[in-house]
Parts: sequence; structure tokens; C-alpha cells
Amino acid sequence: MEKIKVAIVGSTGYGGVELIRFLLGHPRVEIASVISASSAGAPITEGFPHLSNLVTRPLDGVDPREIAEKADVVFTATPSGVSGKLVPQLLAAGLRVIDLSGDFRIKDGAVYETWYKHEAPEAGLLEKAVYGLSEVNGAQVKGAELISNPGCYPTATLLGLIPVLREGWIDPGSIIIDAKSGVSGAGRGTSLITHYAEINENLKVYKVNKHQHIPEIEQCLSEVAGEAVTVTFTTHLTPMTRGIMSTIYAGLKGTYTEENLVELYRQYYEGKPFVRIRESGKWPATKEVFGSNYCDIGFAADPRTGRLTIISVIDNVVKGAAGQAIQNLNLMMGWDETLGLQLSPVYP
Amino acid sequence: MEKIKVAIVGSTGYGGVELIRFLLGHPRVEIASVISASSAGAPITEGFPHLSNLVTRPLDGVDPREIAEKADVVFTATPSGVSGKLVPQLLAAGLRVIDLSGDFRIKDGAVYETWYKHEAPEAGLLEKAVYGLSEVNGAQVKGAELISNPGCYPTATLLGLIPVLREGWIDPGSIIIDAKSGVSGAGRGTSLITHYAEINENLKVYKVNKHQHIPEIEQCLSEVAGEAVTVTFTTHLTPMTRGIMSTIYAGLKGTYTEENLVELYRQYYEGKPFVRIRESGKWPATKEVFGSNYCDIGFAADPRTGRLTIISVIDNVVKGAAGQAIQNLNLMMGWDETLGLQLSPVYP
Amino acid sequence: MEKIKVAIVGSTGYGGVELIRFLLGHPRVEIASVISASSAGAPITEGFPHLSNLVTRPLDGVDPREIAEKADVVFTATPSGVSGKLVPQLLAAGLRVIDLSGDFRIKDGAVYETWYKHEAPEAGLLEKAVYGLSEVNGAQVKGAELISNPGCYPTATLLGLIPVLREGWIDPGSIIIDAKSGVSGAGRGTSLITHYAEINENLKVYKVNKHQHIPEIEQCLSEVAGEAVTVTFTTHLTPMTRGIMSTIYAGLKGTYTEENLVELYRQYYEGKPFVRIRESGKWPATKEVFGSNYCDIGFAADPRTGRLTIISVIDNVVKGAAGQAIQNLNLMMGWDETLGLQLSPVYP
Amino acid sequence: MEKIKVAIVGSTGYGGVELIRFLLGHPRVEIASVISASSAGAPITEGFPHLSNLVTRPLDGVDPREIAEKADVVFTATPSGVSGKLVPQLLAAGLRVIDLSGDFRIKDGAVYETWYKHEAPEAGLLEKAVYGLSEVNGAQVKGAELISNPGCYPTATLLGLIPVLREGWIDPGSIIIDAKSGVSGAGRGTSLITHYAEINENLKVYKVNKHQHIPEIEQCLSEVAGEAVTVTFTTHLTPMTRGIMSTIYAGLKGTYTEENLVELYRQYYEGKPFVRIRESGKWPATKEVFGSNYCDIGFAADPRTGRLTIISVIDNVVKGAAGQAIQNLNLMMGWDETLGLQLSPVYP
Repeated sequence: MEKIKVAIVGSTGYGGVELIRFLLGHPRVEIASVISASSAGAPITEGFPHLSNLVTRPLDGVDPREIAEKADVVFTATPSGVSGKLVPQLLAAGLRVIDLSGDFRIKDGAVYETWYKHEAPEAGLLEKAVYGLSEVNGAQVKGAELISNPGCYPTATLLGLIPVLREGWIDPGSIIIDAKSGVSGAGRGTSLITHYAEINENLKVYKVNKHQHIPEIEQCLSEVAGEAVTVTFTTHLTPMTRGIMSTIYAGLKGTYTEENLVELYRQYYEGKPFVRIRESGKWPATKEVFGSNYCDIGFAADPRTGRLTIISVIDNVVKGAAGQAIQNLNLMMGWDETLGLQLSPVYP
Repeated sequence: MEKIKVAIVGSTGYGGVELIRFLLGHPRVEIASVISASSAGAPITEGFPHLSNLVTRPLDGVDPREIAEKADVVFTATPSGVSGKLVPQLLAAGLRVIDLSGDFRIKDGAVYETWYKHEAPEAGLLEKAVYGLSEVNGAQVKGAELISNPGCYPTATLLGLIPVLREGWIDPGSIIIDAKSGVSGAGRGTSLITHYAEINENLKVYKVNKHQHIPEIEQCLSEVAGEAVTVTFTTHLTPMTRGIMSTIYAGLKGTYTEENLVELYRQYYEGKPFVRIRESGKWPATKEVFGSNYCDIGFAADPRTGRLTIISVIDNVVKGAAGQAIQNLNLMMGWDETLGLQLSPVYP
Repeated sequence: MEKIKVAIVGSTGYGGVELIRFLLGHPRVEIASVISASSAGAPITEGFPHLSNLVTRPLDGVDPREIAEKADVVFTATPSGVSGKLVPQLLAAGLRVIDLSGDFRIKDGAVYETWYKHEAPEAGLLEKAVYGLSEVNGAQVKGAELISNPGCYPTATLLGLIPVLREGWIDPGSIIIDAKSGVSGAGRGTSLITHYAEINENLKVYKVNKHQHIPEIEQCLSEVAGEAVTVTFTTHLTPMTRGIMSTIYAGLKGTYTEENLVELYRQYYEGKPFVRIRESGKWPATKEVFGSNYCDIGFAADPRTGRLTIISVIDNVVKGAAGQAIQNLNLMMGWDETLGLQLSPVYP
Repeated sequence: MEKIKVAIVGSTGYGGVELIRFLLGHPRVEIASVISASSAGAPITEGFPHLSNLVTRPLDGVDPREIAEKADVVFTATPSGVSGKLVPQLLAAGLRVIDLSGDFRIKDGAVYETWYKHEAPEAGLLEKAVYGLSEVNGAQVKGAELISNPGCYPTATLLGLIPVLREGWIDPGSIIIDAKSGVSGAGRGTSLITHYAEINENLKVYKVNKHQHIPEIEQCLSEVAGEAVTVTFTTHLTPMTRGIMSTIYAGLKGTYTEENLVELYRQYYEGKPFVRIRESGKWPATKEVFGSNYCDIGFAADPRTGRLTIISVIDNVVKGAAGQAIQNLNLMMGWDETLGLQLSPVYP
């Protein structure tokens, strides 16, 4: 089986090493270059000894032409603001790009600049970029040149909300998202917010109604609902390394049972192997998807209040970043979307 | 200074040993008897070596008459269902009782039975029991014979909601409570839900809209609002030992800023040393109250959605159990409510 | 490629589900039966929802004849004492057995009974069982009918000690092993020692010089040294789910540098892909092998004291149990020993 | 009761805020100044909201004369290298000093410089400084002007070793110390070694035979033994916030039972309320001293190997830093050594 060659920019971040973990076992991919702006020339095992014997080439620097000589597709696991400038050069060099920063997710440059506080990439590229929520936009991803990989919170939240919103079962104005994340979501940079002694045995709220994933969620929900949707969105930092849980609340527009919901979701996600719907009365926990590309979803419909509670969990580093990026590579190439991703969650 | 004598039934649970920790430093209290139905005769240090040299008397059995001979006031840190039967005997023996089980919190026996699945105590006792939410019901607690100590979730939630609900700033029908707890809330009993390997690096949802603290919260909120209040209530198990965070959502009935809220709450809790209101733009984390009797509260008012988010945190074992029970003892006796409770949170 | 059929007895323990995780991706294996004495008839996803969509057959009961009809090889991930009785029946039914209990590790039945407090299996079987320390005994494992899979502590300790002991560089009478384990090593059974609130933010010592892995370590070291070796062995419970670290101390019999040691170990483990030797001045951490079959080893030789410190880490559930069992299956069948095990550690 | 006035330099480190936690409840102390070189002028609650309502004065800058005007005694919880320069100025300004850095612990300046890589303070001050291992050097601490507070590892290790070494029961050349610490020991500075995602679910070794606490331990043990003692010393970073465990190995010079050891230690530490000796067959866990000034010690004497294993645990932030510093203040002033320190461990 012929292999394509891929490069990874931002190899020394958590998204980058997770791409490596999965791509090492991908039957159609050869890792042609692992790239780090800050550590070029050093072995990646200096910072990540867990890759000893697995990745032996030294880290390359960021040179679009050199990347294009070595690779066909490039993953950019770079901070927001960096990708916006780098990606146009990579595309110009003839590469196909899967971008894990947030720079190409918001179609409206002005909205991007309000939430991200950076200058937006040029409008043409924003339009060209396909939003890679694999289960929903798979058809557009196929053959795309630039894929904007969704954020971690949006992935868990959108997969949990879209079927019921699309069906008109909930009031679009009533959506409240109480989201919780493990600490790896903050990246490998050091700061007080990632200091062990500050986070262990602690539960913190941050960026209430201010998180830059809000416009991404609202853009997608508005499209599904056919009207402008505004959400209340709270993010919590939980004392664990991986995992996101979105606990989503919405008012039901009719009398729907949990069984109705299970059926609706199982139909909507039929043939989508990475979404698993729990039966009525069961809800997923983050550890049940740890290390895997699954998104698990459960429901509670409360007749006392007429509200629906949706629980949606992912591993933020996998389905919320590297895993979905590889799923998008598979879709982009027209392959089986599970290639390289068929790993069971690690439990316990 | 003369001391009163207290007994603790249920000394070998987490609430029990926390009562001991604080009461050892209480200037007006002598611990006259530490009681355990299951371990009578053994030293408490067998199960709790951290109390070595601190508690040297052996555990006593549960004998109401014997307790009444030794003590003036008794804390019952017993499972729900047990207190309902034991407390009448303790009262009959002439003791004053502070009950930490849920058995005397719900005024309506039928409602109790629906949520607790036990037979309710007799109606007379339910009526007699004062609900010991110290900051709110301090006046009734003074001189009471039977105090029903609030649950951990209700304490964090009610202290966070009452001022704004009482003032009519929020829509009583819009309240959604997303609550998170550390594992100690499940008690010391062994089960899969408290197994380290199942909980570590995991975030779980349980009892969605089914938790027995719901009627307790609704009873109190309904009284404050002057109308029946029904809430959506989700409980999460978080990988930490102590701490509760209630993230509370409600629709605002007018345009209130965070500064308005801070001012309202600081006024309402003036002279209440255990409630601390964060300034606008800051929210409390559970570790900021770890090991202490504080309840810390912060706000976010979202002009985009017209919703208010309230963050309220406590240490579930202290303000959510033993600490508030001692605060109620202080109020009951007419003492300064901070006696024995003036400990700073342990940080980090 | 033709597949063999395997059965797993004890599927609902941590060793069992980890066997399933790896075997699902093994190119030469079909899981023919997942077996649980306690949960026969139920779906395994009831207790382990992380396996949703991955294992759909219900659990089978323990019936040696039925197992032999379905499978060629059986893994027994059963408690010690149970395997001793079951394995003879499985062998009699014509199955090849890889046993993960400790029942067949100690060649001398009397020694077994002293440390395990059970009756030993019959001497003939003890003799027949091949001790499956894959890197050391690979030749004997090939073609064996009964493999006794090593314990978790012995695996980390023996791989760390054998090269230097065999070479005569250390004093066999001076060996001290300070071992630390994550909580999953205690299994899924519920008890106070696995209660989250008791273990989190805690470091505990247990079974000092009394652990049943001592005779297993001494038996193997004595064979290597050609003389009776007695060790000091302490086990610690660490607040993490997976991982074992053996910190091993021994007196050096000559002046050996860390470079000498690195060279010796790299030579000894040449062609053994699952042992990785850190260069001088670097030591492995447990997370660097998390979820993988690696054993990583590092050294410090102290000229001030003439002592050698060896740091050896594994994932107790993988190289210390399920992973090495599959490695032994591969060796037994004459396959490449890495089949199904080529997973990178999960980091972070 | 008259109070003395104290100042704390380094208030915004973990040692500093722990001094505040205990001193707030000290009956003979008034906190006159909380000082931070980096945050002077700001409220301490900006970085430490857990102190809300408890510490309301803004942070002062580091000015020896100003400190001397406000306070009688000063705690210097500063990094090593800083204290060496600051303390002479504080003494010159007429203050008594309790120093928590390591700068005055090593009597031999040359040895200090080898291990600390800074210039040593002048010899006269090194001589003047009393090493404040409270239980051992209490007599010299009384009335001292400059106390050098012991390191965290040395405190746990020395209290565990001194009685048996002094009695001549162990071979001084055989001592091996396997030490484990929580992450708070690394301070509040941010670096990869304190990053949550790197430490959680991880056990790491660092500074094998290279830790700067080695000369401190050896200096004290040599004095006790009356001969030069050299130790093997390994430090491990454990996924918890607080706690140190020293697992100490030594060869016994005679046949001593665990009962003999318990008796010896209970005699040696008679009248020392902060050392608790476990009975034979029980060993302390770090959580049993969490948040308190206790050092708990247990033993295993192994007749098979003739070796003694000593387990000694402390809370590194309390008995290993702030708590012992206050104990030394009490001794220095001639007060009961438990003043302000009578807090039970926080459990669970």
C-alpha cells in the first residue's frame, strides 16, 4: 500500500506528540519531518523521552519550501496567530494543510479579531478553509486543500447538540454549556495556571462567557438552526490531564423521552464509528474515551422542568485535536476514516 | 471559661473525624464521647492514625442514655435513615442534637420518602427541626433543640442564590445548577464509585435530576421566592478529595452589572464572616476554601445572553458538614459563631 | 494471515480489559471468548463502557471444555489460588495457557505456601511452567504449553538487575529494592486501600519485606548469580493509577562508570525492542512508559559511596501484566514478539 | 498576654503563606509586615485569594531598617543565595532571624559552595547560626539570634535516623535514603518540572546523589555518630502537593526487634509532642501528617537480611518549613513549643 508523506509543525507541543503517537501506527502515512521552531536540530526525545527508539530523526526547522520537498500534507499544530501567517506560505509551496490552531475556524474576520485579539488571515483563505468537524462536514473535507480542525470544546459541544438542534427539538435561545477540561488543554507552556500545586485538588473556573471557542460554537449552531444562536458558555479547569466534558442544558420544545433522544442520535450518527450513544439512564465519563478518538454522548430529559441535559465527552488531545486531524486526513484522502485511529480507550 | 460536653455519633466517618479536628481546638467544647456503632471498644486511631496522640479514649457504642450522662449536645453524623430513628431517642434522653444526616431537612414527609426511599421521621419532629443554614437562619438556630444541618450541595447553592432570588433580580423558573463535588462527599464506604483507579483522571456525572438534595434546595428557594421553584440539578464527581463548586445559571430580570451583584451580596452577608464575595471579574476556586469553613462566591453577568452565572465554592467536609455543624453549635449556644472555626484555608 | 483463537478468563479485572485493549489490534489473534466467573451472561460494557462498540459478545462462564472448543490459547487473569486449580483443567482440555496469577511462578511449592498462604499446585506443573520474563527466557517460552507470566514488581526489578548481577559487577548480598506502584496494581476489588479519598494526596508503605513477589525475585536472582540471593524489598502505594518504579541499590564490586553501565545494558538488551536504556545522567519516569509495553532503565553510580542506583520503570498493567503476556504469546507461537504491542506510550 | 511582632520576607512563596496560616492563630504573635520583593504594594490576596479577609494589609518591600522598625523577629523564606546577603543586614538592624533558605545550614563554607553553587555567607555567621532541628537542638535554639531552619528532606531523615545511629545500633556506613516529595517542595516558580500534565500520573527521580540536602544530612549524622558519615540519597517527585516520605535503609549491628526500636524512639522523643512513633507492624503515610507539624515514624527490622527499614513522614511545608520555623520561634522565645501549632492533620 502506497504511503503519503506528512510533516508536523509544532511537534513539541501536546498536539504534536499526539499526532506522532497515532501516525506511527497509521498504515498509509510516513512521518517525513517533525518540526519545531524552538528546538530545531535537537532530538525530540530530549523533551519527550517517551518517544525513545520511536522517533530518531532530529527536529527540523520551519521552512515551507523544505517542508514541501519532503512532504505532501502538513499538520500545523501551532499557536493561534502563528498559523495565520504560516499556512498561506505552506499552501503556496503546494502543500495540503490541516491546521490545528484556531486561525481559520471563524469565517468572519472581524469576529475572529474580537475574540482572538490577533489580525485575521485574509478573507479568501477563511472562505477556502473547510471546518473539519468530521462527522458533520465529512463530504466537504474530502479533497479539501485546507482544513481547519475544530477546537476541543466545540467538538464535544457540537457533536452533542447538532442532532437535537437540527431536528428542532430544543429552543435555540436556551442553550447553556457548562464545560470542563483537563489541564493539557492549556498546552505545555509553563504558567501558574498549569502549576501542579495550584491545580491538584482544585477546581477552577476561567474565561466565563469570554472563551474564544464561543464564536466557533455559535457559528456552527447558527448554521444548523438557520438563525443566530447565542450561548452561555463556562469553562472549568479540572484536576486531570486529559478529557473534556460538556454538560449542555436546553429547553425542550416538546415531550421527548430519553429513548427518543437515543434513537435520534443513533440514527444521525449511523456509520460514524467514533460517536457512541449511551442508552437511557447512562452517561459517559471522560475516562471512557481516554487516549481514543471517541466522542461519547448521554442524555437526561427532565419532565419536572422540561429541560434536556446532554453529556458529551472526548479526549481533548485526541478527538479534540490530533485524532480528529488524522480523521480529517483520512477523509481528505478518501480513505476509511478510522485508519490509524482504531485504538481502544486506555482504562483504567 | 466553662466548657460544654459534646458527643459525636458516627465518629469514624469523614464528617465525624472532621468534627473532631475542629472541636479539638474549640475553646468552649470538651469532647466527652466519640461513638461508633461498628467499632465500639477500638481506638479511633486504628482506622485514623492521623489522630494519634490527639484522641486516646476508645470508641463508645451507641447508647442514648449513656450519651446523655456524658454529654450536653450530640452531633449525629450518621447515614440517612439511621438518624431518623436515633434522634428521637437522643432528644428523649434530654440531649440537644445537631444532625448531619438528611433525615430532618425536608419538612414534608411525603417528599422526603419520594427522594430518600426511607420512611420519614414523625411530622412533629420534622416541624421542630431548625434548618441550620447558618448565615440565613441564625436567629432560629439560637436556642434550638434539634438542628438539621444542611447538605453540602444545598449549602453552596443556596448561599450563592438566595440574595439575588430574594431581591427578585432573577427569574425563579430559569435556575440551572451544575454542581461538582470531590470524592469525600461519597463517604468512606467502599464501592466502585470511590475506587481510586476509576476516579483518578476521570470526570463523571451521576444522579442527573435525581439527587436527594434537590427537594432541600427547592424547599428553601421556594420559601425565599414566595412561589414554587423547580430547578435543574446535575452532580459531577471530580478527581479530588474535598471541595464543591456550584456553577449556577439564571436569567436576569433586568440589567444588573457584576458590580451591582458584588454590592448586593456584600450587603446581604455583612457581618457573616464565613462568606467572602469576590470582586467583579474574579471567581473562586475550591482550593481557596480547602480545609476551612468559608463559602466564596463570584459572578459573571453576560449582556449577550442576559444570563447570570454564579460560582459558589465550599469545602464539602467543612462548610458542607462538620464546620457548619459547629457554627450551628456556636449559634445555638449564643456564642461567637466563629469559635473553633478560625482556621485559614490550607494552601496549596 | 491465519489467526489463532484466544480466550480470556478474568476479563472483568484490570489485567483482563488490558488484554482486550491490545488483542483487539493484534493481527494474528481473534478473541473467541471473554470470560468472567462473576458476570457471565452480562455484556462486558456494563462494567466497562469504554469498550462500547468494541466488544459486543456477552461474557461467558468458566467451563474448561467449552473454552477448549472455542479457543486454542487461554489467558488466565485470575486471582492467585484460583489459577492453581483451574489451569490443570484447561491444560487437560488441550489448551495452551498463559497464566497471569502468581500460582506457577515459584518452583518450590513450600516456598509458595509460605508467602502465598494457599496450597501450591502440584510439583509437576510447577516444573513444567516456563517463567515468562520475555527478554530473559524467550527461548524457553517458545513452544511452551504453560507460561507463568511474571509479577509486576519482579518484571521491573529483574530487568533492571540481571545484566549487572550476571556480569558480577555488584555484591549479591547488598541488594535493596525500594519499589513504588500505582493503585491499579491492587486490582478492581473495593477496599479502604483503594478508596480515592484515602489514596489521593497520600504516599503509603505496605508489606515491608513481606510482599509475595520477594521469593519470585530471589528465585530468579539466585539463578542468575549462581548463589542464594536475599533482598530487602519495600513496596509503596503512590497516588497514580498505573506505573511501577523500582529504585534499586547495590554495592559496586569495582569502579564502573555510568557509561560502562549504559554500554553493558545496551549490549545485553540488543534486539529486545521493549527495553530502553537511558543515557548517563538521565532517568526514566513512569509516565514515559504509560500504556505501553516498554521497560525503561537508567543508572547513577556514586563514587562517594561506591553504590549503584538503578531506576527501572514499567506500566504495571502492560509490561507488568497484559503486555508481557501477549509478548509471551508471540514468543510461544514463534511470531515477531512485538505483534499487537507496537503502541507508543500515551503522553502526557 | 503580650505579643511580639514578626515580619515575613518571602510572603508570596509557599513557605511564606504557610507561615501566615499558622501565625494568624498564634496567641503570642502579631504579624507586623508581610514582605515580597517582587509584589510590594499589591495585596497578597491578588496571588492568594484564600487569604481574603484574613490578610488585608498590602505587601511591603524588603527594607531592613523598615522591617526593624516594625518587627522584633523576621522569618526569611527566601531562595538560597538571597538570604546569605540579606540576613547580615537584618541582624545588623537589630532583628532576630529565622532563616528558611539553606544558606546558613552548612558550617563549612567550602562544602556549601560545592553543593549550592553560590558564594557562602561569611564564616562568622555560619558559626553563629543555630541549626534548628527543634527536637534535637532545642537547647541551643533557646535565645539564639540566628536560626537556620532545617531542610525538608533532612528533617524527615534526621528525625528518623538519629536515635538509632546515636545508640550505635546501625552501621553508619550502610545508610541509604530513598526520599519522596510532593511537588510543593519545588516552590511556586513555574517550570516543566512543576507542570501539572507532566507530573500528574507520573513518578520521577531527580538529583540522584546530587541534592544539596546531602551535606546537611551528612553534617548532622557525622556529629551524632562521631565519625564521618556518607549517605546514598535519592529524591523522587510524587504526584501530590504536600508530603515527604524518607524510606531509610541501614544494616543493624545486632539483633533488635521492632519492639526494641519503638521503645528506643519513644524514650528518645519523650516530651517532644510533634514526633509520633507507630507501633510495630504499622507505618505512617504522608496524609496522616498533612497540614500539621507532626513527624511520624515507623520501623521494619528484617531478620532475613539483618537490615532495618525506617519510614519517616512529614508535611514538607509544615514540619519541613513553616511549622518547624514557628516551633523554633517558640523555643527561641522560651515559650511552649506547640503554641500556634496545635492543629490536627487534615484528613482525608
